[in-house]
Amino acid sequence: MKKHYIMAPGPTPVPVDVLLAGAKETIHHRTPQFLEIMEKTLDEARYLFQTSNRVYAFVSSGTGAMEAAVTNLVNPGEKAIVVVAGKFGERWKEICEAYGINVVEIALEWGEAVTPEQIEKAMKEHPDAKVIFTTHSETSTGTVIDLQAIAQITRNTDRVLVTDEVSGLLAEPLKMDEWGVDVVVAGSQKGIMMPPGLAFITLSKKAWEIVKNNKCPRYYFDLRYYEENYPDNPWTPAVNMIYMLNQSIKMIKEEGIENVWERHRILGEATRNAVKALGLELFSKRPGNVCTAVKVPAGLESKKITKLMRDKYGVTIAGGQGKISNTIFRIAHLGYVSLFDTISAISALEFTLHELGYPVKFGEGVRAAMETFHKEGVAG
Amino acid sequence: MKKHYIMAPGPTPVPVDVLLAGAKETIHHRTPQFLEIMEKTLDEARYLFQTSNRVYAFVSSGTGAMEAAVTNLVNPGEKAIVVVAGKFGERWKEICEAYGINVVEIALEWGEAVTPEQIEKAMKEHPDAKVIFTTHSETSTGTVIDLQAIAQITRNTDRVLVTDEVSGLLAEPLKMDEWGVDVVVAGSQKGIMMPPGLAFITLSKKAWEIVKNNKCPRYYFDLRYYEENYPDNPWTPAVNMIYMLNQSIKMIKEEGIENVWERHRILGEATRNAVKALGLELFSKRPGNVCTAVKVPAGLESKKITKLMRDKYGVTIAGGQGKISNTIFRIAHLGYVSLFDTISAISALEFTLHELGYPVKFGEGVRAAMETFHKEGVAG
Amino acid sequence: MKKHYIMAPGPTPVPVDVLLAGAKETIHHRTPQFLEIMEKTLDEARYLFQTSNRVYAFVSSGTGAMEAAVTNLVNPGEKAIVVVAGKFGERWKEICEAYGINVVEIALEWGEAVTPEQIEKAMKEHPDAKVIFTTHSETSTGTVIDLQAIAQITRNTDRVLVTDEVSGLLAEPLKMDEWGVDVVVAGSQKGIMMPPGLAFITLSKKAWEIVKNNKCPRYYFDLRYYEENYPDNPWTPAVNMIYMLNQSIKMIKEEGIENVWERHRILGEATRNAVKALGLELFSKRPGNVCTAVKVPAGLESKKITKLMRDKYGVTIAGGQGKISNTIFRIAHLGYVSLFDTISAISALEFTLHELGYPVKFGEGVRAAMETFHKEGVAG
Amino acid sequence: MKKHYIMAPGPTPVPVDVLLAGAKETIHHRTPQFLEIMEKTLDEARYLFQTSNRVYAFVSSGTGAMEAAVTNLVNPGEKAIVVVAGKFGERWKEICEAYGINVVEIALEWGEAVTPEQIEKAMKEHPDAKVIFTTHSETSTGTVIDLQAIAQITRNTDRVLVTDEVSGLLAEPLKMDEWGVDVVVAGSQKGIMMPPGLAFITLSKKAWEIVKNNKCPRYYFDLRYYEENYPDNPWTPAVNMIYMLNQSIKMIKEEGIENVWERHRILGEATRNAVKALGLELFSKRPGNVCTAVKVPAGLESKKITKLMRDKYGVTIAGGQGKISNTIFRIAHLGYVSLFDTISAISALEFTLHELGYPVKFGEGVRAAMETFHKEGVAG
Repeated sequence: MKKHYIMAPGPTPVPVDVLLAGAKETIHHRTPQFLEIMEKTLDEARYLFQTSNRVYAFVSSGTGAMEAAVTNLVNPGEKAIVVVAGKFGERWKEICEAYGINVVEIALEWGEAVTPEQIEKAMKEHPDAKVIFTTHSETSTGTVIDLQAIAQITRNTDRVLVTDEVSGLLAEPLKMDEWGVDVVVAGSQKGIMMPPGLAFITLSKKAWEIVKNNKCPRYYFDLRYYEENYPDNPWTPAVNMIYMLNQSIKMIKEEGIENVWERHRILGEATRNAVKALGLELFSKRPGNVCTAVKVPAGLESKKITKLMRDKYGVTIAGGQGKISNTIFRIAHLGYVSLFDTISAISALEFTLHELGYPVKFGEGVRAAMETFHKEGVAG
Repeated sequence: MKKHYIMAPGPTPVPVDVLLAGAKETIHHRTPQFLEIMEKTLDEARYLFQTSNRVYAFVSSGTGAMEAAVTNLVNPGEKAIVVVAGKFGERWKEICEAYGINVVEIALEWGEAVTPEQIEKAMKEHPDAKVIFTTHSETSTGTVIDLQAIAQITRNTDRVLVTDEVSGLLAEPLKMDEWGVDVVVAGSQKGIMMPPGLAFITLSKKAWEIVKNNKCPRYYFDLRYYEENYPDNPWTPAVNMIYMLNQSIKMIKEEGIENVWERHRILGEATRNAVKALGLELFSKRPGNVCTAVKVPAGLESKKITKLMRDKYGVTIAGGQGKISNTIFRIAHLGYVSLFDTISAISALEFTLHELGYPVKFGEGVRAAMETFHKEGVAG
Repeated sequence: MKKHYIMAPGPTPVPVDVLLAGAKETIHHRTPQFLEIMEKTLDEARYLFQTSNRVYAFVSSGTGAMEAAVTNLVNPGEKAIVVVAGKFGERWKEICEAYGINVVEIALEWGEAVTPEQIEKAMKEHPDAKVIFTTHSETSTGTVIDLQAIAQITRNTDRVLVTDEVSGLLAEPLKMDEWGVDVVVAGSQKGIMMPPGLAFITLSKKAWEIVKNNKCPRYYFDLRYYEENYPDNPWTPAVNMIYMLNQSIKMIKEEGIENVWERHRILGEATRNAVKALGLELFSKRPGNVCTAVKVPAGLESKKITKLMRDKYGVTIAGGQGKISNTIFRIAHLGYVSLFDTISAISALEFTLHELGYPVKFGEGVRAAMETFHKEGVAG
Repeated sequence: MKKHYIMAPGPTPVPVDVLLAGAKETIHHRTPQFLEIMEKTLDEARYLFQTSNRVYAFVSSGTGAMEAAVTNLVNPGEKAIVVVAGKFGERWKEICEAYGINVVEIALEWGEAVTPEQIEKAMKEHPDAKVIFTTHSETSTGTVIDLQAIAQITRNTDRVLVTDEVSGLLAEPLKMDEWGVDVVVAGSQKGIMMPPGLAFITLSKKAWEIVKNNKCPRYYFDLRYYEENYPDNPWTPAVNMIYMLNQSIKMIKEEGIENVWERHRILGEATRNAVKALGLELFSKRPGNVCTAVKVPAGLESKKITKLMRDKYGVTIAGGQGKISNTIFRIAHLGYVSLFDTISAISALEFTLHELGYPVKFGEGVRAAMETFHKEGVAG
């Protein structure tokens, strides 16, 4: 008998109440009954982004919402500033390139966080690059950027700041309106505690001015159709996922978004302290609260660690991605995760490392996590 | 107390066992455990299309799969033949135009079915139009085309025949390989008996040759990524919808695809006979088995009929779409629909028409349906 | 593909929302969290009985609640008046006899309804028989008694009127307090629209006076333990069924109990009219609204009718029970049943009878049902 | 956000797959379709008891099955030997007394385990006491008896050995046939991993000889009706719970009963080692693997410990019952429980004790548990 613990940065654990909400009878999407649910749900989704802008839900993975951000905001041949410090920064670049956009890349070492100064410099050098693509939480390296400080630079200019919050939403504080972020994209299967299948975008007025007249070819993700039909979808919406979203938002509101952020902060802190207590090193220069990227100790292999934890202990963590696939492993603390999930993951890690020959004194990681919880609160 | 009967052409009723399959624990998509399910499920999905080609599942509405067909097969500036005889033919045209494709339109009256001869003529006039976009079942008019005969014309040429099976799949017989159809797109929320959220595409080798080198901008729907990662998705797949798909296919196999086609044929026949017995007229010149488009009798309004049926009787049928929105109403018989659903819908229609002043002798429509079932079989 | 229609008098169809409520996480029963749900639910259950008395929920079938009524109210060797006009009257008698109670039987033909006068006469002849056991709806014969008139006779005496509402509750009007009924027993799987597994009892003060000092051996069903622990159960309660009960009551309240009664009245009326239109005869002298008992036409067999309807059409009706097992078949209209379920059942009956050689003009039964619904309302 | 961890000895955590099995469509219980499921399920239930005897399922709590054992085996006025060493021994006594049975009590200190010698002595002193009621796992004290040794004494005599396995089944090894135990009663909400609502009994031939002619008044629990109707229930069975039982048995078989026993043994061992590492004392003289009863340290209160763990940490453990309610608290490791659940419970206990003023060095309990798991295996 093995229970499954998803401690990977998406999909994340889904509460039974959310799963059951998704099992309710599918009703027809063009009925007043469904549109009422849809409108109410999208309306409340603003809370997740701390915005008064409309939130649009795509039937797609997060990557679809990223594509929507690109094709609705930039034209082929135009310049865009893209921060690349990991796999998801690379994805922004790839999408831009697929659409013939002229990428001004801020290329960083993986694990580094872009600084406001670096953004400012690129803006100055490229006054014709109107859109800046960033990754609030770079999942591939466990790194968080100072989005608020970056928005401080862009907000009173004609530049549009886009941020990938696919993994970051709810795990890292985000106050879209207060900070002046222009475009946010997100997915359902991370902090929102749903299965994968929905993606989200929300835009400031400044961004909408561009969208309206943007010429880049697009159809399925053309935001003008979504706006025109709001709250209805232009294409058939994923009815049962809207039920789930409704339930998830209800649970997030019950906890309170500040408490959700705080819970993730503490889980992140506990995980970092635990791995350090086990003598391990963090990979990121600026670690965030979505997942903790840990350097694989000498003599061990990332794949063996993740495989043993998953197949023997039922704990799914993530290895590295792309060029650092064997350099790190990543323990997430994202979404529907409690202090005991983190304690469980740490104890599984201790067993695993020990079994692979790394010296572990059982309970040392857990103790460090527990002391963090004791000091910081159990948050939830 | 009102029970809900979805007799509209999508979303369609979802069996409880499919809904419950979707409520199982979300597991991580990059695990051998999930990939095994994914592979098995996509493998078995071939049966639905009667093909040995790979089937790819998008996280999207059916429209997303239509966009994938366009952007993977045609380049901006190139010609494509598009049959337009209703709203979904128009959608092919709109997508092509959004991507700068030169549309050679075969424009028909709504309600007409394109003939093989019309296709042949367009092919001759436009030897440089390599791709032909058709709609097997044009849901907006309740019309089915003779896809097999059309494929007979294209199959031994260098032309690629694409068909929108979003509503038609499983309701209208389709033998992709035997007939020589090149590209089929479909959605989850119709004959497949799932909630909306997944879309499908499958392609012949001839089509793949084009895809590989097609230059049209695309990313999320770029089939090369799907092929490269198969059976995994390049982006996060909708894990729980894959569970549902697995369950749906199981149920379809248990019934047997020939029986599924036959059930739809009989349900369609019974519905047509029932509305004719009530003195109503069919709209389509070549009615299909997805939905029956009925002309609104003089003095009545389509919206009032659909509203009363839905709000008083719980039976959701569809009005008309686009330019014929008040000309017709449409009763579907699509997906998880039994003879009793059809009998219920007909009796609800009788009540509704009577209440709106149309002369009805109660039971006449039902009798005609019952006689059809008696003669043709209850199929299921 | 066959859909299942339960048109038998229990278990009855269960709404998906009730099933899903039962799939929520089981929590511990001795927590304030659960006790709050339990208290609220039992409190609201009074509405179903139209009483201000406490309702107790047993983990048992309805028969368990019947046994509780017997063993808590009568002592071995004492007399009890028992009305026997069918299988469930016989059950009262069997339980009494199992506990050594001296049964004063009012033995009627099956299909007859006991009259107030018959009760009055038995009371006079047996002044020492303090408890009277009746069956509001005798499911085995489709008969309803005039419970209100009977209560009129008992209410100002020292006699205790017990009624089996296992099938009758919500299908037949019951106003426990207003009418002066003393003890009511019920089950979950009928009008309450739940799966089987819970049974209920509620008692007047007059009845409680007896219970307190009754000497009949009992433990599991000893009401004194239930009262002492209320709202908690003395033994582990069926936690997830309490969730379902909560949901069912919510749905019943939304419909309104008068509407629920009225819906059952109209469904009963429509079914009776339909079978009469098909030339069939009713069995009961005083037919009720739980199920319609129909005499098997000459030359047919009850078992063949029920088997064909179930195995070919998916419609489960009931045959006869006990000594009339081949005399009748019974079509229920109980619980979560809509007009379309009744129309479906009638059409299935028409097909079935026709196939078994009974002359049917298709649609005649359905027409009669439809005309009833047209005249009486669709109720719901 | 708080997750719920049920570490109390019933109800225990229910796997999502079991909950979802219970949400399937309720079908009619008197159909071949259901009887097939019922027969298969009851047939496979024998495995849980390691018997070839038939298993009967009551719609009741475990107490109902205990009452069935008493009323089917002993007559009022007859003697029965009853071991009383805790609350559930007391329950045997209470039931016997409710039915006028002459109780020969083997009264022990709570926390003690009856010895084979004590049983033998009582048998000799009371040759007319044909039935012996024992409690394999006395949940109220966390004690297990040596049932195999006791059966060794009774098996070749005319005495009938009854054991309450309501909490013990699957947590403590039981080989009914091999050991020669005569009657076993169990409940669904413990090792069987279901919600409460079903109870079970299974009997040897020797026991059945008594049942057939036993005169004790009974009806609902009269085993003769169950035998007569097997595999059908004499009263309406809890259809959806049978679905769940089917799923639970499937999962138990997949794990293998020896592995289930071993998992419980190791979880028990780890829990005992953990509490001892925290300086706490065990209550039981012969601790079992259902739950660990721990003495409340001086200055603390049982209720405060359980309340804080539940309300702050979401971990539901149990206090004491009856006369030792403030002497102990009990941490279960019963049913669908993994090593990480136990680690979580121990860490929650450390937080709780520390917060209530008991000196704790964080991680010491967890370390002891982890070392046990390391040494004994993670079992599952």
